[in-house]
Amino acid sequence: MTPTLVGELINTSRTTIHDAVKQRDADTIRQLAVAQEQAGAHYIDVNAGTGIASEAVDMAWLVETVQSVCDAPLCIDSPSPKVLEAAYDLARRPPMINSISLEKNRLDPMKAFLKGKACGVIALCMDDTGLPGSADAILERAARLVDHLTAIGMPAEHIWIDPLVQPVSTDTGHGKLALEAVTKIVRHLPDVNTICGLSNISFGLPCRRGINRTLVPMLLERGMTGFICDPLDRHLMAAVKTSRMLLGQDDYCLAFMEAAGKGEIPG
Amino acid sequence: MTPTLVGELINTSRTTIHDAVKQRDADTIRQLAVAQEQAGAHYIDVNAGTGIASEAVDMAWLVETVQSVCDAPLCIDSPSPKVLEAAYDLARRPPMINSISLEKNRLDPMKAFLKGKACGVIALCMDDTGLPGSADAILERAARLVDHLTAIGMPAEHIWIDPLVQPVSTDTGHGKLALEAVTKIVRHLPDVNTICGLSNISFGLPCRRGINRTLVPMLLERGMTGFICDPLDRHLMAAVKTSRMLLGQDDYCLAFMEAAGKGEIPG
Repeated sequence: MTPTLVGELINTSRTTIHDAVKQRDADTIRQLAVAQEQAGAHYIDVNAGTGIASEAVDMAWLVETVQSVCDAPLCIDSPSPKVLEAAYDLARRPPMINSISLEKNRLDPMKAFLKGKACGVIALCMDDTGLPGSADAILERAARLVDHLTAIGMPAEHIWIDPLVQPVSTDTGHGKLALEAVTKIVRHLPDVNTICGLSNISFGLPCRRGINRTLVPMLLERGMTGFICDPLDRHLMAAVKTSRMLLGQDDYCLAFMEAAGKGEIPG
Repeated sequence: MTPTLVGELINTSRTTIHDAVKQRDADTIRQLAVAQEQAGAHYIDVNAGTGIASEAVDMAWLVETVQSVCDAPLCIDSPSPKVLEAAYDLARRPPMINSISLEKNRLDPMKAFLKGKACGVIALCMDDTGLPGSADAILERAARLVDHLTAIGMPAEHIWIDPLVQPVSTDTGHGKLALEAVTKIVRHLPDVNTICGLSNISFGLPCRRGINRTLVPMLLERGMTGFICDPLDRHLMAAVKTSRMLLGQDDYCLAFMEAAGKGEIPG
């Protein structure tokens, strides 16, 4: 089982992407989409959230631009059902939707949007009381999300529970919290998938890539099945491939040896 | 809790060390001892096993040579109680003894040597039937070793159980086997320590350092408390420090931030 990797780089919160979208600089977007796909991303995230008035048209442009060069499906990233609806209609392959949560103003509109759609969805363990403080609270929210989504007909394996990884810089217990939450979700909700924005763990600290890639073996060992991450970080991708081998998911070590042969595993 | 690191580089199975010992080239040994200590090794392993006739005198020379420049205690590495006895008498600080096992020709002589000594001991989960094939078999051997050693008066915390990490190249299940064994030992024998020769996992594969350092977060997450390893591998040391922070063992992330400030965490 290869973890599903969502390439996170096409996001207007990054200045170069903000500018590229504003200027309709398709080359920059296309190059980044292709680079992420070639590096191993299974989905290409597209987020135009900084253009508040223009998000829907910016997102439509991003979808068309990425699809003009990429076979990988999209991860359409917006809190707005209206934006998602337009982008979904343009998507050529079943996308992942990023994201639904239990927050009151978000849950029902998102359920209405998702009903009957052929897509995956990232489901954040967030409600109106804020971020969860214990693994049990995360599991309880995950179970509620699964109830809501299966009730509108989504297959469990299309649901990607995000336990909301929080930075260790604000509380040194946040690493263990994430690991325990994944363990509980895998045990109690075995049919759903799990995913997280990996770099959240390192917010506010130096050497963030070094932190992100060290969390990967721990999360995979606990059974996490996906990451929203930077697939151009070769150390991170090496950690994913090497972890799979160490966890017995790479028959005869063939995928690892192929990666090593291509110089993809830093020595 | 910082994992205990045993620096493995002064071992005559390495050609440069073999030659340095043969030629009584003290500078080479001293430099390597100091480098390992400065890099963070808590014990300096000394092994003169290739000089069959001369092992006892070679080992005595290694002990004196390392102690002339290092404050870190020694890990005296030999299957021979006679060699260990001579080296133990020279040791200025309580050493670690590497190693005892359940093998018939080794167990009783090693128990006789260890009785009443102030030292730690690495206890290999090996008996005359060979390498263990399941986590339960490893735990059973670990429990027998603990029985033997506590019966001669060794405190449990001086016992370092080595579950015998085996290469994933010979069986892709060996990674999970090691992780499950550590989990069982930590649960059922909570007072003992656990250690392994980390690089055994990558035997026979390319990019061995990349493999070794990816296993570290997984093993630490399961509760392993020590590694026999190369402390000069900065990626490995970064993985140890970063894992500690991710596991909530680094208050305010201070040790990580200090390491990052010194350029010790590759970006």
